[in-house]
This record gives sequence, C-alpha cells and structure tokens, in this order.
Amino acid sequence: MHRTKVTIVEEALDANNTIAQANRADFDRAGVKVVNFMSAPGAGKTMLLERVVADLPGVRAGVLEGDVQGSLDADRLAAKHVPVTQLNTDSGFGGECHLDANMVRSALPQLPLDDIDLLVVENVGNLVCPAEFRIGEDARVMVSAVTEGEDKPLKYPLMFRTCDLVLVNKIDLLPHLDYDLDRFLHHLDHVHPDVERMLVSARTGEGVDAWRDWLVRVAGRERALA
Amino acid sequence: MHRTKVTIVEEALDANNTIAQANRADFDRAGVKVVNFMSAPGAGKTMLLERVVADLPGVRAGVLEGDVQGSLDADRLAAKHVPVTQLNTDSGFGGECHLDANMVRSALPQLPLDDIDLLVVENVGNLVCPAEFRIGEDARVMVSAVTEGEDKPLKYPLMFRTCDLVLVNKIDLLPHLDYDLDRFLHHLDHVHPDVERMLVSARTGEGVDAWRDWLVRVAGRERALA
Repeated sequence: MHRTKVTIVEEALDANNTIAQANRADFDRAGVKVVNFMSAPGAGKTMLLERVVADLPGVRAGVLEGDVQGSLDADRLAAKHVPVTQLNTDSGFGGECHLDANMVRSALPQLPLDDIDLLVVENVGNLVCPAEFRIGEDARVMVSAVTEGEDKPLKYPLMFRTCDLVLVNKIDLLPHLDYDLDRFLHHLDHVHPDVERMLVSARTGEGVDAWRDWLVRVAGRERALA
Repeated sequence: MHRTKVTIVEEALDANNTIAQANRADFDRAGVKVVNFMSAPGAGKTMLLERVVADLPGVRAGVLEGDVQGSLDADRLAAKHVPVTQLNTDSGFGGECHLDANMVRSALPQLPLDDIDLLVVENVGNLVCPAEFRIGEDARVMVSAVTEGEDKPLKYPLMFRTCDLVLVNKIDLLPHLDYDLDRFLHHLDHVHPDVERMLVSARTGEGVDAWRDWLVRVAGRERALA
C-alpha cells in the first residue's frame, strides 16, 4: 500500500503576523531597528519625538507617521531635519484607527532604510487596536499622560501589557491635577509587572535624557562615553 | 411576452444602520431619548456624567457604559443611584474599540427603558471608530479635553463633524497649558462650522449647568421655570 507523508502545519500565523515578519526581515537586512510608538490622542508622542529625534548620538533616525488624515505631526518632525514619511489611513485604508503590518509594508519603498539606523513609527492615537497589530517592530513604547487619569492600565490592559516601555508624560502638570501617581504605578504593575517606565515632561524636558538614552540603546549604539 | 415587474432597491442600508434604526424604533416606542457620548481616553466623560446624571430636573436618566474591559466607570455612576448597564467589548465582541448598533441591541433586554426618559451611552474611549457607527441615538456629544492639544479637530475630523455638541473639558487647567483656545475653536469651525460647544470643567463644576440644561432639552423636558 502506498503511503503519502502528510505534514501538518501546527499553527499558521494570521496574515498580519506573516506580513509583520516580512517587514521585520527587511528591516533586519537594512540594519534598522524599529520602535512602534503608541498612545491615546494628545498624549504627547510627537513632542516627545521632537525632543530627541534629531539628537540621538551616533544614531540616524527616521519617522513613519501614522494618522487618519493630514500631515500635521509629520510637518513638525520634518522641521527637525530627519526623514519623515506620512502614512494616512484615510486614503485607501478605510480610515483605520491603527497601523497594521500591511500598511507599514506599503510604505517601505518610501522609507530611506539605507540611510537610517532607527525607525520610529508613530501610530494612530488610540489605546485599543494599535496594540493588536504587530508591524515588524523590535520594541513597543507607549505614552500615558497623567492628564488621562490613573485608571488607564485597567481599562486598556492589552496596550499596557504588550509594551516594553511606558513614558508617563506631562508630569509638569502633576501639581495641578488630582492624580495619584502611586495608584497609576500600582495599576501598571498589576497588568504588566516591572515593565520599564519613565516619568517625563515633553514640555519642560524633564526625564527626556533617559528617553533619548533608551532609544540609543534600542538602536544598538550605546552613547559613547563623554 | 410575459413581463415581470422588477423593483430595484436603490440603496440598502448596511447592517449597522439597519440595526441602529431598529434600536431607534425601540427607544422611540419606550419614549427614551438617547445620547451617544464619545471622547478620547481620559477626556472626562464619566466625571461629566457624575456631575449631572442624578440631577436632571424632571428627567430620569440611565447609562449604558461601554468599555473594553472592567466596570470602573459603571461602578462610579451606579454610586449616583441611576440605573447603569455595563457592556464590555472584550467578552464576545473581540475587544472592539467602539460600540456598534448590534452591541447596543444585545444590551436592550437589560436596559430599564420603561423607567427612564434619557439613556446616555458612554462609548469606548477612542476618537476614530465610534464616530463611524450609529447606534440608534438622537444626539451625539463629544468631549475634547484641552490637555489633548488644539489640533484634534484636524486629526480626527469625522468625530468632530458628526457630533451635535462639543464639550471642551478641563478648562481649569488652561492657565498651566500652552493651549490656544482660539486656535482650537478655529479648527473646530473648520471641520464643523457653528457646532454647539461649551467650555466646562468637570473638576470645578464650571459650565456644568449648561451641560445639564442641554441634556434636559434633549430629553424633551425643559427645566421648569423656578
């Protein structure tokens, strides 16, 4: 009796993860590290990038800017003389509330991968869906502004659980808020124990050096000793 | 030759709009007005409801609370002794970033429609997708906190364009922010000319009376003259 060997594929990646792996392979070939940068609308992602992106010792950075519409943030970052590519989800992607691997892949031909060491992908402002889609990143960073309240880790746990660094932004406003930082950190540790976190103010610059150093480390080029 | 009359349906509603109309018919039969209440995460929806929901002259209000996970906001509002129903998108709805007409319909049997005049549906915190899904509401209200920056109408135009009232919240923080209110209002009028707007602070109570009066008007019961 003739036997045919049947190979069973145990687990197929969904389409998004398959494309994310292809993106990751292309980034790796180009020697580019990728950060997926996420937050709610208005948490301060763009300003936190403006603070550091043109001044990363030994690291050439580029930005892929995701928005439903417009290029306000891309224009701000382009003024810093770093390469910025705009990806709008409104045209051709149905006004999606997040970036996915396929959208990022569609932008690859426009990205100057040979001229950069680090690509920061500023995702659409949203605490839900961006966390569900890998795009081929090496690390995920989220911003949680203290003006949003202490309860956000409990209400949007996937976002807080799947990131590698939490930037707690707008701490210059703490004296003017009824915000209990210890309670926020307690909630954060509940959904993602010991995740790295930094207290920062994009407006005053407080804590921004640590954020800059973190990006340099991710890019694999430790800051040269002074 | 035999002729068959063919009736062409010019425009079919999509499934969401069909269900939204069914919801609306049920709300109308019960004499309940419905407000779809939307914002980014942490803009202050729940606190703005806490301020007014138990104190609407002549109006019995209920709340349908939409969250990805948990019942933090529902618990806060239940403490005000108004009927609150929790709808979690995580269980059974795939962690959706918005409420749609079908999710609201699934909650109808739990809603005390015979005992209320006004139902406020607190949507998931998100400035993108909630604007795309009618749920059977009479009016849409959005909250835009001044801590989110002036550019939000330009970045999330559908949300600002499809609402009937914009609550500009957290104005108590204006002295501590680099926020240009005139610029925000200019952007707002660009995407939605002359939309009704109110400057409020859920924290201090400033402007909250106007918000309360607006809800009473929507419920169709003008405040009795004192």
